Amino acid sequence: MADGTSPLRLDLLAIETPALIVDLDALDRNIARMAREAADLGVRLRPHAKTHKCAGIARMQVEAGAVGITCQKLGEAEAMVAGGIEDVLVTNEIVAPAKLERLAALAHRAKVGFCVDALAPAKAASAAAVAAGVELGVLVEIDVGAGRCGTTPGADAAALARAVADLPGLRFDGLQAYHGGAQQIRDPEGRAGAIRQAAALVEETLAALSAEGLSAYTIGGAGTGSYPFESGLGPWNEIQPGSYIFMDASYAQNTPEAGYPAYEHSLFLLTTVMSRRDGGHAVLDAGHKATAIDSGMPRVVGIPGAEVTGLSDEHTVVALAEGELALGTPVLLMPGHCDPTVNLHDRLIGVRGLGTPQAEITTILSIDARGALL
Amino acid sequence: MADGTSPLRLDLLAIETPALIVDLDALDRNIARMAREAADLGVRLRPHAKTHKCAGIARMQVEAGAVGITCQKLGEAEAMVAGGIEDVLVTNEIVAPAKLERLAALAHRAKVGFCVDALAPAKAASAAAVAAGVELGVLVEIDVGAGRCGTTPGADAAALARAVADLPGLRFDGLQAYHGGAQQIRDPEGRAGAIRQAAALVEETLAALSAEGLSAYTIGGAGTGSYPFESGLGPWNEIQPGSYIFMDASYAQNTPEAGYPAYEHSLFLLTTVMSRRDGGHAVLDAGHKATAIDSGMPRVVGIPGAEVTGLSDEHTVVALAEGELALGTPVLLMPGHCDPTVNLHDRLIGVRGLGTPQAEITTILSIDARGALL
Repeated sequence: MADGTSPLRLDLLAIETPALIVDLDALDRNIARMAREAADLGVRLRPHAKTHKCAGIARMQVEAGAVGITCQKLGEAEAMVAGGIEDVLVTNEIVAPAKLERLAALAHRAKVGFCVDALAPAKAASAAAVAAGVELGVLVEIDVGAGRCGTTPGADAAALARAVADLPGLRFDGLQAYHGGAQQIRDPEGRAGAIRQAAALVEETLAALSAEGLSAYTIGGAGTGSYPFESGLGPWNEIQPGSYIFMDASYAQNTPEAGYPAYEHSLFLLTTVMSRRDGGHAVLDAGHKATAIDSGMPRVVGIPGAEVTGLSDEHTVVALAEGELALGTPVLLMPGHCDPTVNLHDRLIGVRGLGTPQAEITTILSIDARGALL
Repeated sequence: MADGTSPLRLDLLAIETPALIVDLDALDRNIARMAREAADLGVRLRPHAKTHKCAGIARMQVEAGAVGITCQKLGEAEAMVAGGIEDVLVTNEIVAPAKLERLAALAHRAKVGFCVDALAPAKAASAAAVAAGVELGVLVEIDVGAGRCGTTPGADAAALARAVADLPGLRFDGLQAYHGGAQQIRDPEGRAGAIRQAAALVEETLAALSAEGLSAYTIGGAGTGSYPFESGLGPWNEIQPGSYIFMDASYAQNTPEAGYPAYEHSLFLLTTVMSRRDGGHAVLDAGHKATAIDSGMPRVVGIPGAEVTGLSDEHTVVALAEGELALGTPVLLMPGHCDPTVNLHDRLIGVRGLGTPQAEITTILSIDARGALL
């Protein structure tokens, strides 16, 4: 790096920066690996679209064997259906009547499911579904440790499931049991322990459902950091990993358990050195508005010892351990958290052969659900 | 709040959430106050559009007396000119030849300025300006304490200014001297001290310019948290405050110095309670993807003792000190940092009479430069 050129020859791609680029070869391998994992573990795979928000990538996941796509917002589900996805599950509560009407309208075009953790929204959804002449799939969400949404596991959840099953226009599909916090417990024993506790709460709820004469077709949950545990230790039968396609810098801090496949980092923020000083001070042309920092700072790729020392709205300050970077040098950053980073951009630039002299842009993926907050 | 209704009667507005709303009455007062301040201080006002990214708000600022608009990215400047602004300054380095061509093209439609801190981009800009048959205004940026971009103050800066003045197609307009870090030093003596140090570096550079036979028409910089100091203690003659129109929650932690006018919080994120439990646990339907957290968590407005205890991509978990919030209750959050929060949204919903029973939506402002990273 001492001569200011990048070994990746990113300059050959002539991309205006900052820009999100995706290593399509790594993306392909990640998609294939997770599909194989789900098959080997004997669970259904429903990848989470909140990570990529691209109907184009969702179609690749379905073509590789996913049963459908998971979304976190109704607007994401609408964007996925508009992009050709035929089975969407919103793993989140939807309570506003206007949104429940949109959800019911969507069910004319695709198989649609969502979550409830209270009776009133279930009744409102029932009314919307009946008015639209559709059936909505419902998972009752239970709190298995996340401390966010979800009913109390056990009898309370089963009573809500009973009510859902009895409401017209709704189909009780099972349970949503996601332990978000478990994803990034660094040591595998800690992750396994958290999922073991969650599994006990799911089992308790399944018993209560059984007492109500109900069974759960779907027990959904699990993410990239924990799915082998949900599949191995618990009754989950439909996993919803999202991050595996890109891999956050943050996930790289997890110690993998034995046999966990190596998902590859495939998402990078391409930046350019826009200011520099002797002594290894370089300023890149991207900041908070191009890369999310809720899970830590981005990392500099391919420049040993380079460290991000400051980040503001449109700047990243890097301190180099040795050598200098010339003005105009392209520099790759690895985002700390891919999901909210993708949400800052309108498109992904798809590159084949990244890191080789044959690197070329082969596709531009639209981030269809960018900003789909509603 | 014990009965689950909001005293602000936000439910009357029937806005789908999450949504950014702006209190237009407070916005008007903030715009008028800053215009009066600049007039009283005898400095030109060039408000920063990176905060609002709305040409509609920029036009209000110009109508109130601003000489033009400041931008941080070329794409922002293009959006402002497309929205009717006739004088834009990009207070940032632009180095890529393709961008310098866009900058020169923009100068056919508006008065355009930008910053340099190195000779090579100045030469490239000169070539682009000559090719387009335009003149570009140039501020030489000096580092007065931010440790980011900018040349060394003094002789180095003056030598660069001399080179700029001698290049065809460029007009040396003066210095950019912004001390970002000073904005949020909490105590006013600390802020004054930081600006006093910056002022000494500006004065040193002005002396060096004078030795080169150059003068600075513009000495630009200053922000909402520090502009009285730049105007009072130093030679700055064009201030670039952005945040005053909305006011970040973070700014509320600054101790104001005597005589500093009270800018009002005018930007809020409207959310809805989407999940709840007895014991004061409420989950709002907005997270990282709707509100930036680089300057701290959002604050809950109007519910004494309510605290944000967790934030994920699409959820905010709130602990209530007393009482309960019903499902569907609208809740206002005050973003920790307005600039990157606005950048997550496509529009601002403008409300008159916010907080009164007569509250009504009177305008929808397009966030024209949302995602303008290039």
